Amino acid sequence: MGKVFVSMGISLDGYVAGPNRSLQNMGGDGWGSLHAWVFRQRVFRERLLLGEGGETGPDNRFLAAVFDRTGANIMGKRMFEEGERAWPETPPFRGQVFVLTHEVRAPWERKGGTTFHFVNDGLEAALQRAREAAGDEDVRISGGGATVLQYLNAGLVDELLLSLAPTFLGGGVRLFEGIDRDAVEVSITEVVGSPEVTHLRYAVRRKR
Amino acid sequence: MGKVFVSMGISLDGYVAGPNRSLQNMGGDGWGSLHAWVFRQRVFRERLLLGEGGETGPDNRFLAAVFDRTGANIMGKRMFEEGERAWPETPPFRGQVFVLTHEVRAPWERKGGTTFHFVNDGLEAALQRAREAAGDEDVRISGGGATVLQYLNAGLVDELLLSLAPTFLGGGVRLFEGIDRDAVEVSITEVVGSPEVTHLRYAVRRKR
Repeated sequence: MGKVFVSMGISLDGYVAGPNRSLQNMGGDGWGSLHAWVFRQRVFRERLLLGEGGETGPDNRFLAAVFDRTGANIMGKRMFEEGERAWPETPPFRGQVFVLTHEVRAPWERKGGTTFHFVNDGLEAALQRAREAAGDEDVRISGGGATVLQYLNAGLVDELLLSLAPTFLGGGVRLFEGIDRDAVEVSITEVVGSPEVTHLRYAVRRKR
Repeated sequence: MGKVFVSMGISLDGYVAGPNRSLQNMGGDGWGSLHAWVFRQRVFRERLLLGEGGETGPDNRFLAAVFDRTGANIMGKRMFEEGERAWPETPPFRGQVFVLTHEVRAPWERKGGTTFHFVNDGLEAALQRAREAAGDEDVRISGGGATVLQYLNAGLVDELLLSLAPTFLGGGVRLFEGIDRDAVEVSITEVVGSPEVTHLRYAVRRKR
């Protein structure tokens, strides 16, 4: 069975989404500065069909490893609603995506192998379906921040990857606001980076 | 002229001091978990006269470099008041320390070469006195969080060292709460670490 992991961009002041977030302003103000490095990587440009080229250094290797290990994705309703407008018709997931929502909706199949499934019965049910879809590969809790926090506090995450960008958002969604520190324990397993971003890898354990 | 730098321990959720801080509870709940690595380092044990031994790996080298470069320290009143009770009679500074305060008080000389000076005329005046005391060496803005933030927002800091501990404090003083992101810009210059802590080095620039 694969691992359950999180991989998110985070600002130096701890935000994963900026202020003034709306469907028209995906991720809020400053979200672009958090992910500027992503759009320059070769593997991301390939996935988003942005054309040739792109960086092939440590950040690209990091991102390629995240894509490679991911057998299925889970995301919150809000991330889906923002992405539904913003992603191209060939979304970057290239696999099964389970959306936590109260909305009852038939699976939505997109180009490039991505299908969105709408799950109405909670965190654990979504995880079980994602595990089945992933097989031996890993399940990524893709976001947003509130969904990741729920999975962390429920003790359902094995690994946390933070891509720490040297930027301040000054408001928005703080990833660890509300973390249950009696339940969640992390330890450093790897640090890699570039002049643009620092990738921090943590093993996550349930404390009790 | 030396640089002005900050070197602080910070939790994964962004705190430099924990909740329930008081003169009897220096740094608040969880502060110890933030700095546990420090107390194990050889150079710190030497400075605090804790006896022989201690680690001599990357964390020790990091800490030794911080001590070596520091020609003078600046700190806020609250950090001083906590430390006044907690530091041994040979405090770890071994040099001139400038305390920002409204209290008028004669310099307080301690063993081992540390003298605390009480500065009543603000950030820039304290910095000027510290620069003079430091000569060619660097000035460290020692803390606490509020004082560091003031110096950052005033554009008076050249370098920021964060020792990111894999721990959550869940409350207390957030270093970057109130950062003026229109004024402060950082870029990554180095990342070093160990299984215990990740040391992030940033150059700081004034944006405008």
